[in-house]
Amino acid sequence: MRAWQANIRTVTPYVPGEQPKGEHLVKLNTNENPYPPSPFVKNAMDEMDYDKFRKYPDPASAVLTKALCEYYRMEEDEIFVGVGSDDVIAMSFLTFFNSQKPVLFPEVSYSFYKVWAELFRIPYETPALDENFLIHTEDYYRENGGIIFPNPNAPTGVFMPLSEVEDIIAHNQDSVVIVDEAYIDFGGESAAGLIKKYENLLVVQTFSKSRSMAGMRIGYAMGNKDLIRALNDVKYSYNSYTMNMPSQILGAEAVKDDSYFKETIEKIITTREKAKKRLSELGFTFPDSMANFIFASHREKKAEDIYLALREKQIFVRYFKQPGLDNHLRITIGTDEEMEKLYDFLEKFLSS
Amino acid sequence: MRAWQANIRTVTPYVPGEQPKGEHLVKLNTNENPYPPSPFVKNAMDEMDYDKFRKYPDPASAVLTKALCEYYRMEEDEIFVGVGSDDVIAMSFLTFFNSQKPVLFPEVSYSFYKVWAELFRIPYETPALDENFLIHTEDYYRENGGIIFPNPNAPTGVFMPLSEVEDIIAHNQDSVVIVDEAYIDFGGESAAGLIKKYENLLVVQTFSKSRSMAGMRIGYAMGNKDLIRALNDVKYSYNSYTMNMPSQILGAEAVKDDSYFKETIEKIITTREKAKKRLSELGFTFPDSMANFIFASHREKKAEDIYLALREKQIFVRYFKQPGLDNHLRITIGTDEEMEKLYDFLEKFLSS
Repeated sequence: MRAWQANIRTVTPYVPGEQPKGEHLVKLNTNENPYPPSPFVKNAMDEMDYDKFRKYPDPASAVLTKALCEYYRMEEDEIFVGVGSDDVIAMSFLTFFNSQKPVLFPEVSYSFYKVWAELFRIPYETPALDENFLIHTEDYYRENGGIIFPNPNAPTGVFMPLSEVEDIIAHNQDSVVIVDEAYIDFGGESAAGLIKKYENLLVVQTFSKSRSMAGMRIGYAMGNKDLIRALNDVKYSYNSYTMNMPSQILGAEAVKDDSYFKETIEKIITTREKAKKRLSELGFTFPDSMANFIFASHREKKAEDIYLALREKQIFVRYFKQPGLDNHLRITIGTDEEMEKLYDFLEKFLSS
Repeated sequence: MRAWQANIRTVTPYVPGEQPKGEHLVKLNTNENPYPPSPFVKNAMDEMDYDKFRKYPDPASAVLTKALCEYYRMEEDEIFVGVGSDDVIAMSFLTFFNSQKPVLFPEVSYSFYKVWAELFRIPYETPALDENFLIHTEDYYRENGGIIFPNPNAPTGVFMPLSEVEDIIAHNQDSVVIVDEAYIDFGGESAAGLIKKYENLLVVQTFSKSRSMAGMRIGYAMGNKDLIRALNDVKYSYNSYTMNMPSQILGAEAVKDDSYFKETIEKIITTREKAKKRLSELGFTFPDSMANFIFASHREKKAEDIYLALREKQIFVRYFKQPGLDNHLRITIGTDEEMEKLYDFLEKFLSS
């Protein structure tokens, strides 16, 4: 080993989810929205002045923040925007979990929480879910340096009722509690309404799922102005220009088109409810999902075998080869047409 | 103070450079390119399929990496792309400067080096420049945990000849040496050609200045494949999807249009050389600049007074209120027309 190599940080490289390419494949593996973004986004893109690319983007992303504030009827100092909710949450770990006490998050939840805690050397503990993949609120009634959980949870899709979310927040007024609502728009009830009541609450959402804009990298956090100021201070202290100009403009347009948004969500929910019925009939069991995916296990066939067989037919779902999760498939809700291809194949495969 | 506030990281918030808005102002304060990006960028934007926004962007930014590799005749595993060179350099600090020995960078240089060192708790030392704003290579011949310097330097615009850059790299083969070439295209000679010779060399460049795409946030690093792999490992370990889809596609297009690129650079260099002559005639002195800005001091009038008077006339230049720099103005090279407005006003103001 060369001397300079000794100073290199060694990490366990994460392998991003498969992004297969091709015309006829059915991609139900990364929880993307099967519908395009709002036509408002297309119009704004068509009108965008490329000459403006030569200038630095607005570091405060004011156009986007303003659109979100109008949508949620919040003040501009109550919303922080970042380059995807990954960026927002990583920055929140850095900003709010700066103590020696362990941060708490569910053992089964978004896999990056652990990564960020380790990156920033934040101690953490991970209470287990019960056998039905439920979070028990009382596991979060102990001393901690902060709390974060997804609601609905990932990769289970299970939604925790708002009363239980509030229990956790109310029991932890000495810590910042972050509710990661990446999938909230698919039928859950957001905790955003509790922000005025609890000053220790931060609610994080994203444009990647319900707003069909994963490719643009837009996420945001809502909270009282002290929390938002702290996030902005940390952000500006080390990188002022993070969100590029098209994301700011196109993100704002997406927010303005509420009827398209609602219509798209409605279609996905309808397809999901149909999927629950069809997958049950095909012999799958799953916790009830309020997200745009279903975390399903088959009564007879091994998840890995189904995953590989589907893959062979260019139908991609997500399979996690980890203890506790390795007999489940996370199936993203696609269009009705895509889902029919899935059912058709499963029908044949499972009866063979 | 509430208990949760005790866990909040406290930082010195950075105040981003002024971004004044208006039709008739002359903006020479943030080293942006006065010309639009290549028409290739506009064409690609016009043809972009907004439906694809719904999918996650390619985490490897392959389209962009490939375009850069073809341009520089490098291999794809020798280039790393990030969200602006700020992102690339911050990630490089995290990846390569992971030791207890001090990292070295010039006392007068890019102000964020200090910020990232502090953020990641990396010790650092900052050798002073001489009275002519020159870096002395021998200041970098001592034990260290890594070296970084901009070439040309900022905010001075001084270019260090490649032979001296090579001296520093050759004397420090036990450390990673990062040459930050944000302004290299305006007449300097890049160290990229030394990458095959020195495996400890990382060269960082950006689309924000010479390629007129500050608004898109694109930067990149070139180095031997071990360095690039280490950067990618660190990046993937905590955030896989950072660069959005339009930046990847439009960035690649910008690289393909080399004749437009050269033409734009040529115009800026011509304007800069004219500016040197005009500013000298107006009583300014400055180190010879190879960047798209001039760091000028007036023989009689105080820099701050000139700055304020210009500002009053909607002509914005950059003024740093810090010891050692506070009698200089950093003047970005704009179009000839913008520069004429500057000279006209200075002529009147300085003779009054």
